[in-house]
Amino acid sequence: MSEFTYNASKTLDLVRLRADTSGTHNRNHLNNAGAALMPSPVINAVTGYLTREGEIGGYEAAAEASSSLEGTYDSLGTFLNCSRDEIAIAENATIAWQRAFYSLSFGPGDRILTASAEFAANYIAFQQVAKRTGASVEIIPNDSSGVLDPEALLKMIDDRVRLIAVTWIPTNGGLINPAAAIGRIARDNGILYLLDACQAAGQTPIDVNALGCDILTATGRKFLRAPRGTGFMYMRKSVLETIEPAMIDLYGAPWTGPGGYELRPDARRFETWEKNYSVRLGLRAAVEYALEIGLEKIEERCIHLSSRLREGLRDMQAVSVHDLGAPLASIISFTVKGWEASAVMAYLTDRAINVSVSPPSSTPVDASARLLPPVVRASPHYYNTEEEVDAFLKAIAALAYS
Amino acid sequence: MSEFTYNASKTLDLVRLRADTSGTHNRNHLNNAGAALMPSPVINAVTGYLTREGEIGGYEAAAEASSSLEGTYDSLGTFLNCSRDEIAIAENATIAWQRAFYSLSFGPGDRILTASAEFAANYIAFQQVAKRTGASVEIIPNDSSGVLDPEALLKMIDDRVRLIAVTWIPTNGGLINPAAAIGRIARDNGILYLLDACQAAGQTPIDVNALGCDILTATGRKFLRAPRGTGFMYMRKSVLETIEPAMIDLYGAPWTGPGGYELRPDARRFETWEKNYSVRLGLRAAVEYALEIGLEKIEERCIHLSSRLREGLRDMQAVSVHDLGAPLASIISFTVKGWEASAVMAYLTDRAINVSVSPPSSTPVDASARLLPPVVRASPHYYNTEEEVDAFLKAIAALAYS
Repeated sequence: MSEFTYNASKTLDLVRLRADTSGTHNRNHLNNAGAALMPSPVINAVTGYLTREGEIGGYEAAAEASSSLEGTYDSLGTFLNCSRDEIAIAENATIAWQRAFYSLSFGPGDRILTASAEFAANYIAFQQVAKRTGASVEIIPNDSSGVLDPEALLKMIDDRVRLIAVTWIPTNGGLINPAAAIGRIARDNGILYLLDACQAAGQTPIDVNALGCDILTATGRKFLRAPRGTGFMYMRKSVLETIEPAMIDLYGAPWTGPGGYELRPDARRFETWEKNYSVRLGLRAAVEYALEIGLEKIEERCIHLSSRLREGLRDMQAVSVHDLGAPLASIISFTVKGWEASAVMAYLTDRAINVSVSPPSSTPVDASARLLPPVVRASPHYYNTEEEVDAFLKAIAALAYS
Repeated sequence: MSEFTYNASKTLDLVRLRADTSGTHNRNHLNNAGAALMPSPVINAVTGYLTREGEIGGYEAAAEASSSLEGTYDSLGTFLNCSRDEIAIAENATIAWQRAFYSLSFGPGDRILTASAEFAANYIAFQQVAKRTGASVEIIPNDSSGVLDPEALLKMIDDRVRLIAVTWIPTNGGLINPAAAIGRIARDNGILYLLDACQAAGQTPIDVNALGCDILTATGRKFLRAPRGTGFMYMRKSVLETIEPAMIDLYGAPWTGPGGYELRPDARRFETWEKNYSVRLGLRAAVEYALEIGLEKIEERCIHLSSRLREGLRDMQAVSVHDLGAPLASIISFTVKGWEASAVMAYLTDRAINVSVSPPSSTPVDASARLLPPVVRASPHYYNTEEEVDAFLKAIAALAYS
């Protein structure tokens, strides 16, 4: 790529992006893996709609905004490279994931393959279903760098493998699992593939066809910068047509006569009639905001800032960085010698620097295997600045060598 | 009750209540059974919190507001006369209801007893579970006035009845089912009792002990005047301790070691870790707003306004009122001779009068039995005025006799 192209189209207009983000005036927000700062178009979409509900009524506002609301599916279709009919919007990623996973059928001896750094919510659901059905839950081994090993996965495949369910970018560090390589194996062997993309959405381009996943779920609140109260699911048309949701209502499965109902033909069979419309408009605004900037540009800047932050920490002897693999995502997990993670977070909070703590309970298998303590998690986004990263590093250095 | 008491404490301060409700300046809102107009303290609670999330970050705002957020459970406990530990908050009433109902176990021959005017969402879920488990779904007969008949229910009881699940105030008219009488029968016979209180919440006092229900679910958006995106569940402590939720995550069932999890001891075992905090503060504000006014006063005024409206319609020969039973709730269902319900609604919308249409598909058993067409649904609330009711009646008279 030429220098000219970089300058002309690859540089973000940080002044505008930060002006859209009131939180950048108040905080050094490095907690985008928790919940990113919403930009003003997102907040305005939600509060504007809520105000309108107050002015004319909830049903009346929904009728007035119906085409805007429908547009959320179109935007998500563009965002994920799928049809609008393959999208279900949910109240959060966990509900989206649960509504997909718990609708699958398992029996004794069926195998569910997952990653060592799987998010605990998913892992606990696997345990419940294993207990309920007699299926087994097995961890796909990692390679020597700590990344899920597609070759090891391939060796596990047999005709009892019913599901491969993996977190793409785990919550407790910079690890990126090889989602597309897993997808090729799943496809080659006709195995259903459920990908949790919570930390990926808004940080990196997502193309469900390139990934080869059958189901993908994500949340709005993290790198996508959408409001809390939003999540979504992609389910491939050919797959969803074969799945009756575990729970249905009159929206997902309209009544057809005594004792009967008929499932909707699209992914909204997984939705309920009752919806929170205001946050759907916020989700739409967030998706369009990300698309307008460009996910490639976002990813490039995330890599730039997170590398600067991670390398700065690695230069400190009193700090241990726990991220595995390469390339790495914009999540940096670390501990400071002599300091509990919660104390590091409190120290940073006092300095208006936002981070979070990732406890072992959020990724239990990985944390047990690596004997991880609670770790501090820093997660810059494209709207952060080099100065903010450096201020964070200066603060950590002051603590580590105090 | 003396005249003095009435004047001193029973009259609502309508000027203040309407000043709190910007929508009353713009619309004659008689669609409270759909979604009531939120008062400004509710809107401000949500938008204020969202703004704060934008200013300091989502996790950071939640930490700052943690005691306010916890207070939502206390307010709901007061509202329902139960312990805060018996409350789960959900994204809407359907999800609250589903998370309870689908967690129950049924087998072949088990009987689920429900009402003829049961909400379609529930009825369709019954059908799915019946198909899945071999349980039967049976309609409890009504008495000659069209109200669920407790004596008929009593005659149906045997040791195969596993659940009585009833909508207290159905969505398609003024009917009030005898929720407490049903509760006595359920209790006397040791049968689980699930009460859908969507249209009751905010319109009438609710006391789960007086009702004798084991599980109660409701939405925020209707008479309670809370934001869309809110619902809640009461589950009696002794019952919830015996129920493993159909779907769990790391919040409802924290990890306890390899392969293990332990359900939370309280009703939040039915919640997920991910939550929409902003609307929870709106829900709290709405519950406290209703409690401050007093549910008895609210109910009295709802009866007053809805009776005026219903009687006005009954005086018109070209109008048929379809409400069954007595006493009646603040929902009036009617049709106008020669006009489709949707045309009546469009006519009223043009005059800034908000109502909704209740299609047969929302209460399929009742609508089939009574051969109901789509009906217009008018639902005044305490903040409406006699003048608004009269303006509505005048508009309907003009249409009916045009």
